[in-house]
Amino acid sequence: MRQAGRYLPEYREIRSGHGFWEMMTTPDLAAEVTMQPLRRFGMDAAILFSDILTVVAAMGLEVRYETGGPVLGPLVRDAAGLERLKAPGRAAFGFVAEAVRLLRAELRDAHALIGFAGAPFTLAAYMACGGPSKSTFALKAMAHREPALYDALLTRVADAVAELLAAQIEAGADAVQIFDTWSGQLGPDDFAALALPYTRRVVERLGAPGVPILLYVRNAAGNLEQAAASGATVVAVDGSLRLAEARARLPKGTGLQGNFDPALMTAPPERIRRDVVAAVDALRGTPYVVNVGEGLTPDTPPEGVAAFVEAVKETAR
Amino acid sequence: MRQAGRYLPEYREIRSGHGFWEMMTTPDLAAEVTMQPLRRFGMDAAILFSDILTVVAAMGLEVRYETGGPVLGPLVRDAAGLERLKAPGRAAFGFVAEAVRLLRAELRDAHALIGFAGAPFTLAAYMACGGPSKSTFALKAMAHREPALYDALLTRVADAVAELLAAQIEAGADAVQIFDTWSGQLGPDDFAALALPYTRRVVERLGAPGVPILLYVRNAAGNLEQAAASGATVVAVDGSLRLAEARARLPKGTGLQGNFDPALMTAPPERIRRDVVAAVDALRGTPYVVNVGEGLTPDTPPEGVAAFVEAVKETAR
Repeated sequence: MRQAGRYLPEYREIRSGHGFWEMMTTPDLAAEVTMQPLRRFGMDAAILFSDILTVVAAMGLEVRYETGGPVLGPLVRDAAGLERLKAPGRAAFGFVAEAVRLLRAELRDAHALIGFAGAPFTLAAYMACGGPSKSTFALKAMAHREPALYDALLTRVADAVAELLAAQIEAGADAVQIFDTWSGQLGPDDFAALALPYTRRVVERLGAPGVPILLYVRNAAGNLEQAAASGATVVAVDGSLRLAEARARLPKGTGLQGNFDPALMTAPPERIRRDVVAAVDALRGTPYVVNVGEGLTPDTPPEGVAAFVEAVKETAR
Repeated sequence: MRQAGRYLPEYREIRSGHGFWEMMTTPDLAAEVTMQPLRRFGMDAAILFSDILTVVAAMGLEVRYETGGPVLGPLVRDAAGLERLKAPGRAAFGFVAEAVRLLRAELRDAHALIGFAGAPFTLAAYMACGGPSKSTFALKAMAHREPALYDALLTRVADAVAELLAAQIEAGADAVQIFDTWSGQLGPDDFAALALPYTRRVVERLGAPGVPILLYVRNAAGNLEQAAASGATVVAVDGSLRLAEARARLPKGTGLQGNFDPALMTAPPERIRRDVVAAVDALRGTPYVVNVGEGLTPDTPPEGVAAFVEAVKETAR
């Protein structure tokens, strides 16, 4: 998940002088904010400071950040909305590629850099439902009422996502992650019909890019095997199931990432250490990336994150 | 889930003259609104028009409805907050009992009446985190930092919930449902530690009330067996897993309820019919209550709900 954020005083300081969208689209600001958590905590990998709505904006929607979340428009709910959309090539994501290049140079061989994009279902949910609705109803309704329109929209979004990820890989990202947060509102049958084919399209268009592709899903307890069927190298899971169960259900060759609760960072350091050591020991010898299962909230205590990272490093010694 | 709501013109008409909280606390308005969907669609059972924050208000918090959701205060985050709380007996829920009595008389033996309350974890999340936060972070942080405070808060909430449900049963409810929406943010270990003991306490305090107790959970894919361990008669599941899988994983004696997607109501009637008939046929001979897995949104088409109820009735003929 995103490492930078309002829980860090040094982030809030930069943020006080710049808008969120401005930070994300200005390569040296994005690179600087990406480095902040790495400098403070020393994780193995940096996660590019970016936003999943990059693709939505590149396709022509206006994206505005307000309290309560992003506001988007005009929403895409009919054929006219579909026709208005642009088909961004990787040149449209030059500012992202530039941030990746700056970071690649700064990180040298000491730390990996993980780029990312939103998954087609999640991005289409924003485009059809609007930002703050927290609902995928209008998008599901489109799938029921106008399946051809739904398919055309998701296909176009998938192609734009593939362009963004290819741009990041070309610029030097060591791995890319696809975030499918809103597919957590789909049960197994709907996930198979409405989300999986388009995420798989992204993976296929990337070919064998030589870097791992990580796919994050919510409702991992319900949709784990299908997430693996996308062809992703690693499935990143939310907190809906235990890591040991996720490992047992995934194909042997598929990596696992996740799924600590951000609220664990509020626990005493010895509890944090115990949970991390237990998980890493249980998964030793299998492909596993330690991570949280949800984004860090602004009230996450930095000292809890420090204890968490320290515990992970201890398991590697 | 709630049957009444803004998707019905007759509801919007009453709502235009009355506040939401006023409708819920005025027995004849609550009863009238409860009857509206039954008159239009003819379901087997009516679901009491009420709100899960009834208990929170009875414990002394101020509850105010604004666009974007309920606003609550003062939040309960420390021992002083805990000490401020009232311990409502069933007399505090007289307006709910009166609505149940009015409905029981109107429904006679033709239709069942389902009462409900929020689950302790869900209500405590509102009390600690506030209404519109959509996060349980502050409550989980309390569990990590002050486990004794957490336990005392959840225990008091559980006792108040049991009083409300007992009041509904005494007044003539044929079943009661406990809604644990926010426990969907808990994986299996946290569900076992933070939600289950208090929901079980509610069930135990009700004794063997002679009516079914239904427990609704989100993240049913991850927490199904534990939801059943609450002692509830029926586990009502969200859309995170298939009904057939839920049935196979539940103990034989435990009923199943759920879990159609409200967005299915936007599909052509033949698709709605096909999905309903397939589910009911597959579960025939087992204890099963047809329901949606999430609340109906304001843009749900009433004709889709009509097709859904009609399909259910067809399976009974």
